[in-house]
Amino acid sequence: MEVNIPDVLTEVTAAFERYEMALVNNDVVVLDELFWNSPHTLRYGATENLYGFDEICAFRAARPSTGLARTLGRTVITTYGRDFATANTEFHRTGSDRIGRQSQTWMRTPEGWRVVSAHVSFLS
Amino acid sequence: MEVNIPDVLTEVTAAFERYEMALVNNDVVVLDELFWNSPHTLRYGATENLYGFDEICAFRAARPSTGLARTLGRTVITTYGRDFATANTEFHRTGSDRIGRQSQTWMRTPEGWRVVSAHVSFLS
Repeated sequence: MEVNIPDVLTEVTAAFERYEMALVNNDVVVLDELFWNSPHTLRYGATENLYGFDEICAFRAARPSTGLARTLGRTVITTYGRDFATANTEFHRTGSDRIGRQSQTWMRTPEGWRVVSAHVSFLS
Repeated sequence: MEVNIPDVLTEVTAAFERYEMALVNNDVVVLDELFWNSPHTLRYGATENLYGFDEICAFRAARPSTGLARTLGRTVITTYGRDFATANTEFHRTGSDRIGRQSQTWMRTPEGWRVVSAHVSFLS
């Protein structure tokens, strides 16, 4: 399994950055697009555990759109072969010194790269 | 990408259960074995962010071996094709009502299934 094939890494990095832009701007259409539309998709958020694409979409639709600005640090994107990747990053919200962590597993689908599993939390 | 091919799901479930047994028994040899031996491997723990296999091993070696007992719930293991999988589970430590979450991304390697990325946290 070849790791970090340059053109694959470029693709996943672009998808990751598109997700980040959508997140801080609360662009729910793009956020929904970038999660795999499947009952298998799962997202552990800081304050909620969401099972399946429908629960994730419902959460996005109901989420307040303020206070989402953040700065990323120590981002690590790794690709495995041509169809799988992980993206991990630390983040800081404006006005807070807590260290957040965001983990995503990405899969290539016929529609493009999609998040199949995600986990967001703050360091205890 | 075929999801949950039965024999692949059986393999990953066995690896996941082996990891869980090693974790609650603090079997450091098996815990180290089941993480991918790579500088790309990453583990966000409840109280630490570990970058690369060496930092993960050092953490395991130094960790107190008591208080590791836990009960799993809502475990979701999903396989994608024959070489990738995600394993997500909630957990409760004995004597605590906090909801823990553990996420792992697994990859098939020549040596067997290995965790390439992991994230453990408690629901805020």
